[in-house]
Amino acid sequence: MLSSRIGILGGGQLGLMLLQAAVDWNLDIHVLDPDADAPCKKIAPYFQQGSLQDYQTVYEFGQNLDIITIEIEKVNVDALEALEKEGKLIYPQPSVIRLIQDKRIQKQFYLDNDLPTAPFILTENRADVLGHIAFLPAFHKLGKDGYDGRGVQRLTSEADLDKAFDKPGLLEKAIPFEKELAVIVARNASGEVATFPTVEMVFHPEHNLVEYLFAPAEIAQSTDAKAQEIARKTAEAFQIVGLLAVELFLTKEGEILINEVAPRPHNSGHHTIRANATSQYEQHWRAILNLPLGSTYAYGPSAMVNLLGEDGFQGLAEYEGMETLLATEQVFPFLYWKAITRPFRKMGHITIMDSDINALKEKVDFVKKSIRVISTKS
Amino acid sequence: MLSSRIGILGGGQLGLMLLQAAVDWNLDIHVLDPDADAPCKKIAPYFQQGSLQDYQTVYEFGQNLDIITIEIEKVNVDALEALEKEGKLIYPQPSVIRLIQDKRIQKQFYLDNDLPTAPFILTENRADVLGHIAFLPAFHKLGKDGYDGRGVQRLTSEADLDKAFDKPGLLEKAIPFEKELAVIVARNASGEVATFPTVEMVFHPEHNLVEYLFAPAEIAQSTDAKAQEIARKTAEAFQIVGLLAVELFLTKEGEILINEVAPRPHNSGHHTIRANATSQYEQHWRAILNLPLGSTYAYGPSAMVNLLGEDGFQGLAEYEGMETLLATEQVFPFLYWKAITRPFRKMGHITIMDSDINALKEKVDFVKKSIRVISTKS
Repeated sequence: MLSSRIGILGGGQLGLMLLQAAVDWNLDIHVLDPDADAPCKKIAPYFQQGSLQDYQTVYEFGQNLDIITIEIEKVNVDALEALEKEGKLIYPQPSVIRLIQDKRIQKQFYLDNDLPTAPFILTENRADVLGHIAFLPAFHKLGKDGYDGRGVQRLTSEADLDKAFDKPGLLEKAIPFEKELAVIVARNASGEVATFPTVEMVFHPEHNLVEYLFAPAEIAQSTDAKAQEIARKTAEAFQIVGLLAVELFLTKEGEILINEVAPRPHNSGHHTIRANATSQYEQHWRAILNLPLGSTYAYGPSAMVNLLGEDGFQGLAEYEGMETLLATEQVFPFLYWKAITRPFRKMGHITIMDSDINALKEKVDFVKKSIRVISTKS
Repeated sequence: MLSSRIGILGGGQLGLMLLQAAVDWNLDIHVLDPDADAPCKKIAPYFQQGSLQDYQTVYEFGQNLDIITIEIEKVNVDALEALEKEGKLIYPQPSVIRLIQDKRIQKQFYLDNDLPTAPFILTENRADVLGHIAFLPAFHKLGKDGYDGRGVQRLTSEADLDKAFDKPGLLEKAIPFEKELAVIVARNASGEVATFPTVEMVFHPEHNLVEYLFAPAEIAQSTDAKAQEIARKTAEAFQIVGLLAVELFLTKEGEILINEVAPRPHNSGHHTIRANATSQYEQHWRAILNLPLGSTYAYGPSAMVNLLGEDGFQGLAEYEGMETLLATEQVFPFLYWKAITRPFRKMGHITIMDSDINALKEKVDFVKKSIRVISTKS
């Protein structure tokens, strides 16, 4: 399997980290991305510029490959299904991508498979939402193409109605939750399943992006066992081959609910590059190449801070404070090969380790204060 | 410093691992290697085929770069000196490379700097050796171009004389030693110095290549402190900027002697990619970019096995047993992007970790038995 010709749809930061992990095994990787300056461009053994959503482009890209994977869900699934019919291995499977691409179908899948998730109502347009004012407060989620906090609006009362989407979506009951958690699961074609330790996410109050996370999550052991079990059951319900990142709510009543999933490496697993015996990226290769899954053992507590473009700056990126970070014990910045910064653009992340959980949190605060992505040139 | 244009002379496996570490910081790396299919070829942001020993090639390669480093000592130092005079940063410094390139000068350097090393006699040719039969048993070492066990012969008596080199070399007293150790030291331009934990090397009895190593070495704490101190003093004596791998003998009397040094990442530090907070490769970048050095903290005991081409096989490499390795907890194979195997060619290495040192050694035996690099096609 190591000599397979492998394609990745998408050449962003997740692709970049997949490529870095692939160096160890000489994997022959071909990357397709619409951006001629995508993060993967300079590092990929083969890079092709082209649309991920165009049938013909994706189909032709796959012709000379044995295995195709994704680092973003928004791809032409029809082309992947055609390739699958011709005998190519497509992991995650096109059927799984299709299920997950549409949050409406994804939610229904949880119900059908007895997987816990918050109550919801499907809506076809904005007017539809008006008929469910009693269901608020709720999150209105766009069925398709939501990403990184886009495509989600919190509606508290009728006054928020203009924020509702005028496209097919769903209203998800806003459950008062204690914490947001995530578990990354890997499953290979033989059906072997492995989970990474549960992480606890802290969101930026304004931009709905993960601001930082800790691993392991500070939760009761029984809660952790429940989170791990639900994540595992979800991966098995999808029969996914590859990684599945399962985002969870821990309610104030101690219940675990599935928020949403992503069928690929995930922001909530970047820290595994430094902190775990096997990173999520290596684990993804193991899963889709049907190799034995690696140990997810963590060498110690870790945290991960997203490095976002500073508000008010746009242009050639400069990383103010990098040297301060590099001078701090077990602080590991990772930059995404993006020349241009924009407000809140994901420009990199920083993994932080410390054997003491309190010292770890102090380091997180220090890191957040110490670095800024700015621009003095445009 | 992170936006510098950086060149590496040499695109072999050490270059490959330097490139992999450079992904984290978006380093703009240009690689020069005589082999159009060098391990770095497909991964390097920029790759140029060309001789490392030709003045004009090296000089021109350096023209558009800010910083130049090496992954092999056998390079045109005159060209590097010319580039240095023009204001390029060359790390390790050309003067250091020149000193180390010639084992005769290297040995004299230890004497001059009060660094412990085995007694030696300089020889100009084979006839010269005949005049020093009383000094045997000794190792006859070629002054220049020895590498990976080539350029070293053990002479026990006059009968071995035909094995002596008929070129400038040195006779080094064969000291009965207990163990061979290595310490990798990093020093940045600001003079900051950091050492990696001492490793213990086990050599292949026949081929004089490192067969495997353990870290930390199983030696008394006082011996370890002495090894670390000598390594540090050696790096400071050279005033090197970059990595210095210091190979040491521990004699039966408990004395530490310098065997030889390499001014670059080294075979005895591959395990640091998996086992230490900062790998030797990242540390090399930190040192030559004059960044703060990283923590060399080890997450646990580790071992490293060189993966050599099986005797009797030559042709397209196949890795028999990879899946067995990947199914073993905390066993991490790393392959070198070499299409063709040859007997004893370095094709990769395997890092092995275990919190228990005895379990670790058992895993080493298992790994050595489980994998072979063979060829069924040529």
